[in-house]
Amino acid sequence: MTSQAAAGPRASEAPGRVGDVRRRNLALVLSRLGPDTVASRAEIAAATGLTKASVSSLVTDLLTTGLVEELGVTRDGERGRPGVGLALNPRRGALGAEVNVDYLAVGVLDLKGTLRVHESVEAVNHGRAPADVLADLQGLAARARDSAAAEGIELLGGGLAAPGLVEGDAGIVLTAPNLGWRDVDVSDALATLVPDAPYGVALSNEADSAAVAELWYGQGSAADAYLYLSGEVGVGGGLVLGGSLFTGPGGHAGEVGHVVVDPQGRRCSCGGRGCLETVAGQEAIFAAAGIGTGTATGRMAALQDALAAGDRKAADAVGRAGAALAVAVVAAARLVDISAVVLGGHFAALRDRIGPLLVDSLADLAPGQITSVSFSDLGASAALRGAAGGAVRRVLAAPHELLA
Amino acid sequence: MTSQAAAGPRASEAPGRVGDVRRRNLALVLSRLGPDTVASRAEIAAATGLTKASVSSLVTDLLTTGLVEELGVTRDGERGRPGVGLALNPRRGALGAEVNVDYLAVGVLDLKGTLRVHESVEAVNHGRAPADVLADLQGLAARARDSAAAEGIELLGGGLAAPGLVEGDAGIVLTAPNLGWRDVDVSDALATLVPDAPYGVALSNEADSAAVAELWYGQGSAADAYLYLSGEVGVGGGLVLGGSLFTGPGGHAGEVGHVVVDPQGRRCSCGGRGCLETVAGQEAIFAAAGIGTGTATGRMAALQDALAAGDRKAADAVGRAGAALAVAVVAAARLVDISAVVLGGHFAALRDRIGPLLVDSLADLAPGQITSVSFSDLGASAALRGAAGGAVRRVLAAPHELLA
Repeated sequence: MTSQAAAGPRASEAPGRVGDVRRRNLALVLSRLGPDTVASRAEIAAATGLTKASVSSLVTDLLTTGLVEELGVTRDGERGRPGVGLALNPRRGALGAEVNVDYLAVGVLDLKGTLRVHESVEAVNHGRAPADVLADLQGLAARARDSAAAEGIELLGGGLAAPGLVEGDAGIVLTAPNLGWRDVDVSDALATLVPDAPYGVALSNEADSAAVAELWYGQGSAADAYLYLSGEVGVGGGLVLGGSLFTGPGGHAGEVGHVVVDPQGRRCSCGGRGCLETVAGQEAIFAAAGIGTGTATGRMAALQDALAAGDRKAADAVGRAGAALAVAVVAAARLVDISAVVLGGHFAALRDRIGPLLVDSLADLAPGQITSVSFSDLGASAALRGAAGGAVRRVLAAPHELLA
Repeated sequence: MTSQAAAGPRASEAPGRVGDVRRRNLALVLSRLGPDTVASRAEIAAATGLTKASVSSLVTDLLTTGLVEELGVTRDGERGRPGVGLALNPRRGALGAEVNVDYLAVGVLDLKGTLRVHESVEAVNHGRAPADVLADLQGLAARARDSAAAEGIELLGGGLAAPGLVEGDAGIVLTAPNLGWRDVDVSDALATLVPDAPYGVALSNEADSAAVAELWYGQGSAADAYLYLSGEVGVGGGLVLGGSLFTGPGGHAGEVGHVVVDPQGRRCSCGGRGCLETVAGQEAIFAAAGIGTGTATGRMAALQDALAAGDRKAADAVGRAGAALAVAVVAAARLVDISAVVLGGHFAALRDRIGPLLVDSLADLAPGQITSVSFSDLGASAALRGAAGGAVRRVLAAPHELLA
């Protein structure tokens, strides 16, 4: 996914490195240790089909990498001999960062998938020079790294999520209209987010990252195919098919925010017209509801108050957003053949209103097609969890890189 | 794709059958012979990396299958010795059949991809008993088989395309609202379309078949990712990604006819509302243009006359269809990340009107997203070419099945 990550396979050709089979087996042993799993060497041997001697040798290497730790004595089944429990080391992790239109955020995720540090600041990033925005992000990342160090967490990699189309391998944000960015090279910023990260720092789309975060750490794990909708200033989307992100032939699939819901509608920041984002994006809802300027948090509170007070304009604005969401969700359902949708960002904040509206509209527009509508519980940290989670998965897939 | 086709790999386990490597090499040699290719044994050896002795032996087997024929003497390059030219045998082929709302059609495609026989009758199939429709199709197929026999063409397999959601493996049309079919088992009909076909007869969706026909025998071959739109009474769609059909997690992706283009629009035969089909389907256009009842051909001629005469109602009807097409095409482009679209059926018949409308609307709704709009030249035979073509591909991928 990143050039850093891609360097892994080539390393096998260097003499004196860990062989292919051993590399696969190291990852195989590691894959038996989930977020809450404690397993003995004997249990891992039984589960993988490797001999106990092989597992012992592999575990010795994994302990050397620091990715695995030994816990107290456990039992191999009811009648087995006592063994030492092995678990993922929560003092290893990855940093996730997010640039968005109205906030910056950085977090640290440990190998078990727990968000250990979370730093976030509201900001007005539209139209600011990318270098200034990235400098602020670096400041936030430095604080997060300090917090991680204070907790004894060593960072092995990271990820940055941006609200636009990205060329991940090159470290370039191709276009992020809501930031006003076009062809912004962030590769230097990536390198400094986690200095000397053995697994590198990858660039990804914000909604794609939130979509996989839902798969790895949220509700998505149950369903293996769904559309994730991320409600921010823009509306992003990610398609998870067969348990992984579907990026399409050009790498930019799932752009549900720019599905046209009203062909006679308003111009969109993307240059198009009547996109979902122009009706269901945060700014569009606030404007239609007559909510004044201010921070995103303050405006969302004002919108909630107006809705609670029975304000007609607010209800209509959210109603139009829910109806527009239904049109876009049906398009995804018909074209990609999914039957589940997960909504995050401000859609999740408005779930009590949006949920029933969406379900009713879906029943009218495409009865029987969408059988599951759910809302993310990951809040504003979804994208950075996904960005950090991508790095954690690179670590767990290639533990041998720490043995060089 | 079909249970018949799936029987191939298992056959390798039976004693005395062609071994795995030889099976692959038989298909590899065959793959060097395209629709217009004549190649010598030496040329095939050079192109495949197989030894001349191996190629000679493999070709001997392929001549036995009847899939390949020897032509006159050719030359291996300028200075080589003369060799015998090898080509696909145009006297082997497959039958393609299509059930649609207002016609039935059967055709015979030879191994080179030429449509050698084409029988088609207009019909009013909506609401008829499936058994009656299938009996009529059998009559048409019998005539096509007779024509094929008269031309000396031996049929090795076949395919049936239906305008609805199908469960191909089970031979069941799950739902075809425009026919009024629901859970219709057509497996007996499949078996009798080409009696004793060594490569079986597969069931597929009509628009999916037309989409791959465009890939294999039409314009799609240039682009490896596009949305195909099939304009009939219904509007079907097929997504070709990476040079093959994208069917999605549930097998029914690409249903562009039921993308919502007007959430306040009319009820659709699918049970939904405001689907593309309710604005851009044949019936919808004829009704909006004030064209009376009659055969599809007659009504299309009347519509063309009205358009040529500057009739306002006709122009508006086609205009609305073009605008609705743009909305649905943008949805596919944004969600699946394609940049090309190919239109067939009545959209192709109306290309002079629909083309400019679509291009203008796309430029307004999503500038720069769709860079190629083209129209199918395969006419009403697209779906049956795709259905027969699927069988031809099964033959060419597993020539060893004829050596048992």
